[in-house]
Amino acid sequence: MQLRIPGPTPCPPQALQAMSRQMINHRGEEFDKIIKSVTGKLKQVFQTEGDVFVLTASGTGGLEAAIVNTLSPGDKVLSTSNGVFGDRFADIAVQYGAEVTRLDTEWGRQVDLDAVDKALGVDSDIKAVLVTHNETSTGVTNNLAGISAIVEKFDKLLLVDAVSSLSCINLPADDWHCDVVVTGSQKGWMIPPGLAMVGVSEKAWQAHAQAKMSRFYWDFAKARDYLKIGQTPWTPAVSNFYALDATLDLMLNEGLANIFARHARVAQIARDGVKSLGLSLFPEEDCASNTVTAVNVFDKIDVPKLIQILRDEHDVVIAGGQRKLSGQIFRIGHLGLVYEEDIELVLEALSKVLPQARR
Amino acid sequence: MQLRIPGPTPCPPQALQAMSRQMINHRGEEFDKIIKSVTGKLKQVFQTEGDVFVLTASGTGGLEAAIVNTLSPGDKVLSTSNGVFGDRFADIAVQYGAEVTRLDTEWGRQVDLDAVDKALGVDSDIKAVLVTHNETSTGVTNNLAGISAIVEKFDKLLLVDAVSSLSCINLPADDWHCDVVVTGSQKGWMIPPGLAMVGVSEKAWQAHAQAKMSRFYWDFAKARDYLKIGQTPWTPAVSNFYALDATLDLMLNEGLANIFARHARVAQIARDGVKSLGLSLFPEEDCASNTVTAVNVFDKIDVPKLIQILRDEHDVVIAGGQRKLSGQIFRIGHLGLVYEEDIELVLEALSKVLPQARR
Repeated sequence: MQLRIPGPTPCPPQALQAMSRQMINHRGEEFDKIIKSVTGKLKQVFQTEGDVFVLTASGTGGLEAAIVNTLSPGDKVLSTSNGVFGDRFADIAVQYGAEVTRLDTEWGRQVDLDAVDKALGVDSDIKAVLVTHNETSTGVTNNLAGISAIVEKFDKLLLVDAVSSLSCINLPADDWHCDVVVTGSQKGWMIPPGLAMVGVSEKAWQAHAQAKMSRFYWDFAKARDYLKIGQTPWTPAVSNFYALDATLDLMLNEGLANIFARHARVAQIARDGVKSLGLSLFPEEDCASNTVTAVNVFDKIDVPKLIQILRDEHDVVIAGGQRKLSGQIFRIGHLGLVYEEDIELVLEALSKVLPQARR
Repeated sequence: MQLRIPGPTPCPPQALQAMSRQMINHRGEEFDKIIKSVTGKLKQVFQTEGDVFVLTASGTGGLEAAIVNTLSPGDKVLSTSNGVFGDRFADIAVQYGAEVTRLDTEWGRQVDLDAVDKALGVDSDIKAVLVTHNETSTGVTNNLAGISAIVEKFDKLLLVDAVSSLSCINLPADDWHCDVVVTGSQKGWMIPPGLAMVGVSEKAWQAHAQAKMSRFYWDFAKARDYLKIGQTPWTPAVSNFYALDATLDLMLNEGLANIFARHARVAQIARDGVKSLGLSLFPEEDCASNTVTAVNVFDKIDVPKLIQILRDEHDVVIAGGQRKLSGQIFRIGHLGLVYEEDIELVLEALSKVLPQARR
């Protein structure tokens, strides 16, 4: 099967074999070795010398952790959403009592740097800025380097949803002053869902010391204390740790630059391919993502039918649109374990099925 | 290896094979079938006609979910702790702003029913009672049936940590008026950690409608809405779902009564065995748990040394004591995939190693 949704992504045999390993004591020597190995390698991919913690949760749990570890109820937060996941990040902050200013960008466009600069200039009380590096719902990659420079200029906290970008698209967490950066195991990391990985800067720790939002399961301080003794505060998803240890080796052997280049090549094939089929990209092309391609159907294609025929007759699994984009777009995931020939196969299947799914 | 800690527990081959299955679309038809199959079977083991949700988290996340879904800051809560996990449950409530009355019981004894009755009689404002059905840190099983009758009499919410009891020790959630009951995948369920399963009563839903604690990831309403369409709100730990689907079949084939009887037999062998080795139980015997046996060493045994020799020379992994019981007790887990011969093997190894670990 070609599983080409934007996560869960296909797992290589090394990951699946690791997933089937028998359990061990999560407070013993063997797990100590694994968590230290995994954490060290994660830091290389995060391009950080700060802390990296692995939480047993999905990516959304990591986003919640980013909020509750750095903020207090009543804190002002600037949300820079341009899609479903940006909205979710802001909603979490609202749920925990933050005062959220929503700088919403039209879906399919990238967040405008001048607008961020202006919003931060207007309200000096804003404490943190929420950014979705790669907006999975629209196939847009935001200019995180540009945004981070502005956030740095105003000396605000930068909280980054990198769930579907980190390890696929360059994201040097330290160079870009990311204070909390969140990713999820079922994306570029090529293992099953179950883990959220979070990078935490020194400035985030300073915020943590003041932050008064309720937190227990997500508390970074507990994660830090237990990591020192080679453990997690709560029983970890041991199997996913085994698998992550294996895929991190694959990734570091390939090399970050090569991984980023591969994702760029594959994405270009996807974009060129859908255009050659007479379709158009949903996002503006200059911000189109290297991990997920969102394709406009302008009511000409029955998206559920397209998805079903692709799956039933061609063993190709793609995703539809979310929320207001339901029925309006389809999405091809190309992150993690993906090569040129995989996307060529998807495009070939699409070329056959599109005529059958026309309205 | 004999992994005889109180979780993670050994996984049967069916679970490990399931863990190695390739990923699927977690918002597609196949996952819909799996989550409905798993949920239906879980309800049988929970002995409930209420809701059961599967959260991607460890058991502690499930405890946090029980608190934040039913309570508001300032609500009065009665904690009936007699160990590490009871204290943790209370600490979570405190973190989220509940006003917690701590009815602490000496570790190793069970919660006294008269004391619960008295505490609820004294303060009519108490809204919820926290109970740890099986206190893993001390090897005590509390009289949940007795406590639940009192809580029912006073018409309070009953929030139950059943992480290390449910599926091993009889816990009819509906008959015992449990409003939220929490368990974890790496215990009696015989699969790796990564999932918390929670049962939710109608009365808990009424509390949920009023509850004002901040919640997003843990929100039962989101879990309910997505379960209706065969999904989870956030990407689930798909592999653990595969495995749980498989072990639930094993469990239902064996039959609940047979599972409970097997745990009782195995626990009796453990208790008799350690006593025949000249050791004594840490808990009072009438409340000694059928899933974990805690053994007093009275400073006569070097517990870390005992654990290390057992592991290195006999391939038997047991646990030490937690917090103030560190060095004072060791614990043998016997839950999930465990038979008489497993514990006999542990006892035989103990008989050899105890003389080497004497102080």
